[in-house]
Order: sequence, then C-alpha cells, then structure tokens
Amino acid sequence: MFAESDAARRAGRRVVFVPTMGFLHEGHLALMHEGKKRGDFLVVSIFVNPTQFGPGEDLEKYPRNLAGDLALCESAGAEAVYTPRADSMYGAGYQTYVSLSDLPNHLCGLSRPGHFRGVATVVTKLFHTVAPHVAVFGQKDFQQLAVIRRMVKDLDFFIEIVGHPTVREADGLAKSSRNSYLSPDDREKAVVLHKALSGARERVAAGERNAAAIVSWARDLILETPGTEIDYVSLCDPDSLEDLAEIGEAAVMLLAVKLGTTRLIDNMVLLP
Amino acid sequence: MFAESDAARRAGRRVVFVPTMGFLHEGHLALMHEGKKRGDFLVVSIFVNPTQFGPGEDLEKYPRNLAGDLALCESAGAEAVYTPRADSMYGAGYQTYVSLSDLPNHLCGLSRPGHFRGVATVVTKLFHTVAPHVAVFGQKDFQQLAVIRRMVKDLDFFIEIVGHPTVREADGLAKSSRNSYLSPDDREKAVVLHKALSGARERVAAGERNAAAIVSWARDLILETPGTEIDYVSLCDPDSLEDLAEIGEAAVMLLAVKLGTTRLIDNMVLLP
Repeated sequence: MFAESDAARRAGRRVVFVPTMGFLHEGHLALMHEGKKRGDFLVVSIFVNPTQFGPGEDLEKYPRNLAGDLALCESAGAEAVYTPRADSMYGAGYQTYVSLSDLPNHLCGLSRPGHFRGVATVVTKLFHTVAPHVAVFGQKDFQQLAVIRRMVKDLDFFIEIVGHPTVREADGLAKSSRNSYLSPDDREKAVVLHKALSGARERVAAGERNAAAIVSWARDLILETPGTEIDYVSLCDPDSLEDLAEIGEAAVMLLAVKLGTTRLIDNMVLLP
Repeated sequence: MFAESDAARRAGRRVVFVPTMGFLHEGHLALMHEGKKRGDFLVVSIFVNPTQFGPGEDLEKYPRNLAGDLALCESAGAEAVYTPRADSMYGAGYQTYVSLSDLPNHLCGLSRPGHFRGVATVVTKLFHTVAPHVAVFGQKDFQQLAVIRRMVKDLDFFIEIVGHPTVREADGLAKSSRNSYLSPDDREKAVVLHKALSGARERVAAGERNAAAIVSWARDLILETPGTEIDYVSLCDPDSLEDLAEIGEAAVMLLAVKLGTTRLIDNMVLLP
C-alpha cells in the first residue's frame, strides 16, 4: 500500500483519491477541491497509463508537465501525490486484466478497442495501492465513469465513487489536456461540440422526444464546421449506454469529434 | 466490507482468510490451522462459485454440508464465516471479470475454459469484502495458487498469499471434496495418482532428467489401472507452468485423471 495512505488510514483519516494522467488543468483542480470536501487526506495520482492507449494513439505525444502538476497539487491542498513508473506498474510477466463485457461495446469502446480494459485494470491497481475511502472522477469522461461505477459495484470495492460536473472554458469547450493539441483555428472550431450538446438540450426542453431527429440535427451542425470528422454522436441510456430511440426518462448525449488529428469528447445529460 | 473484518481491522487485529467452496475436510482444516498461526482473526468463506464451473461440469451436484461446515469452522477457531449467496455476488447487469492472459493456457485451463477467469474474479471479490492481511490456499490446486499469486502481484493487492502443502489420505490420495463422488472401487483405484507422482519423484531423485521419459512412465502406470482416463500429465516450470523438456531446477508434475465421471487433480514438486 502507498505508505502515506496507510499512515492516514491508521490515523483514522478519510482518504480521498483523484486519479489523473497529469498535465493538470482547472478540471482536475475542481476534482481536487471536490475531494477536499469529501475527505481529509487527498491523494492525487499522476500516471499516463500505456495500457489504455491503442496502437497509433497519442501515448508518445501525450502532454506532460510533472513540475507544474506537483505545484498545482500542492496549491490544491493535496496531502500526497503518487507518481508510479510504467515499468513498475507493468513488470516482467504482467498478465492480469480487469474487463467488462457490455459497457465497452459502445461509443469510445468501439473506436478504442482495449481502452476500457486498460482503464479498469489501472484503476483497480491504483485503488489497491492508494486504498481510498472515496474517489472523484470527472463526468467529462462519462463512459469511463460508468465503467468504473459498474466495476466498483461488481467487484465489491468498498470505495465511494463521486462524479464531478465537467469544467468548461468561457465558450463552453470542455477542459481537457488534449485541448493543448489544437491549432488556434481548430480551437475556435471546437466550440461546435458544446453548441451541439446545448442545442440538443434545448430541443428536448422544447418537447422533442425523437432521438434520431436530435442526433441528426447535431450531426448536421457539427459537419457545418469545416474540418470536423464525427466518430460518434449518440443519445444513450445513462446507465447501460445503450442507444435510445425515444427520450423517456434521463438521457445522455455523447459525442466524439476529430478536429485535424485531435479527438475530442464531450457529453451532456438531457432531462425531458 | 464484511463487518466482522472491518471491526477486526479497526481493533488492530491481523485478518487471515481461508476461502473455500465448503464440504470441508481435513485439507481445509489444515488451511485453517495454518491461518490461525498467520493472523489473529480467521475468516473462512463458504461459496460454491458458479462462474468457475463450465457447462456440463458438476456445479449442480457439487457436495454441500453447511451445518457441518459451520461446526468445523467453529472447532478450528474461526472468528467469522462469510457465506454469500450467488444472486448477491452476481446481481442484475453483472459484467466485470478478472482474467490472466498466460497462466490459464495450460493444464486445467485448457480442459476447463473460463475456469480461472471465474476463480480470479471471485477471489478478487472475496478479497475486497473480507479485506484480509493474509490468505491461505492449498497447494493441491497448484495452478489456482499460481494464478492467485500472479494476480495479487499484478493487481497490487496488499495481501500475503500462503500456500499450504496438500493433505493426503493414508494411501496417499489427496483430500478433496470431490473424493465423495468416488465409488468404493474407484476410490481404491484413485491411489494411482499419488503412485505416479511419487514414482516420478523417485526417478528424478535417481538422476532421470528427461521430462518426456518421466511423463511417459507416469502415463503408462496410470493407464494400467482399468477405467482411468488421462486429461493431462505434465512436467512444468512451477512459476510459468510451461512444459519442461529437461528437469533443471525445480519442476512440478501435475496431473488430472478421470475415474468414471469424477475428475481428480494432484501434483508434486520434483527437486533434482
């Protein structure tokens, strides 16, 4: 176990955990601030997990800034930062994986095979090492949060999972470490993701219940912006992530869009 | 978490865990006695785990004796017994599994596809619930023990794994709940498993180093007993379970033999 967690638990403190891949931004800061409210010993991990990147994805160029990250963790009041090395996380003969049979068969799981197996496995390892009472994840990675909630329930982890609302730029773009990849031109265009989600929400609020109509409207809006390439635009059940035909109870719209070589994701819960 | 474990941990006690499928015999008793030496709060679980049985295997007829098991746990000094129900372990929407990519591709893993995924998953769940400091497993299930040691290392479980030597009947037959399936005639014949292992060990002690020669001798001996059907007889590296051509350092001989409808396994470490 992470020695700092062990000492904190023995001292009767409530350990709260924010796992990250580093290059921290205001979205991560919000998770840490939420964490400070949920416990009294905040552990942040910084680990760019190779097993959740596929071949040809951006593992090599994923942005890193460890010195800046550590300063930000300190400013947020983190009591400890866990920064494992990839070769100690996946040593010789490594062969154990945690996987889910249904939730990854949607959305990002389809375009990123093996991604959620990598996520579930590394989060299991981090949970065992950090041994938190509570862990905070961003709702921006909606499918990831669904996978982790399901895994925690299925594997009987004794850890409370908190989802925190997405933090956005002034124009609505969801904060993401990958936004740093965007050219100034693409950065301006990227606002279309949030416009599509907000417009969908307005349509539902105005009475539209047909999922295909909403998705079609959102796809058209996105494709009006030159240089966008849609991976998916989906209206799903928030628990199972299965496609909805009609908006009955809560629904979530999720989208993944490429701008140049940068793939962005975002989502919004739509309440009828 | 299992409330009894939680209270014991808070009280500073060392929780030791013996997971079983019930129908307890002297082999399990030996694990419990070992456990009592390794910690000061012994938890035994009794759970016939459906996900480690394949189609057509003996899940339905697996022997059960809960009242007798509880009495035996008490006599062995167990502080708590955990007896979950299958429908609470695998509820609606259950979909998370722990699997290993290499170790199950040998021996029992070949004739029982999915078996070790079921074992790794249920042991993960039991570890999370019981939250032990140390867990004791029998060496009779040699491949299972190898899978669990590897899983504990890979997933960063903070649990010490203890392997306990196989307990045998007077004639050498390894104690097993499945021995109760044997007819009196098959019970007599079953001694051939131990004879094959002991004979192999004598051959190695006498200088034989050729694995194929030892395996061939053991197969012939087993097949001399009418009604035996060999699933496998293998001489393997004790860590990777890969087949050995030569006995260099430590080797383990493992075998699975059917007598009528009863499949028995056994193993022995052979030291050159």
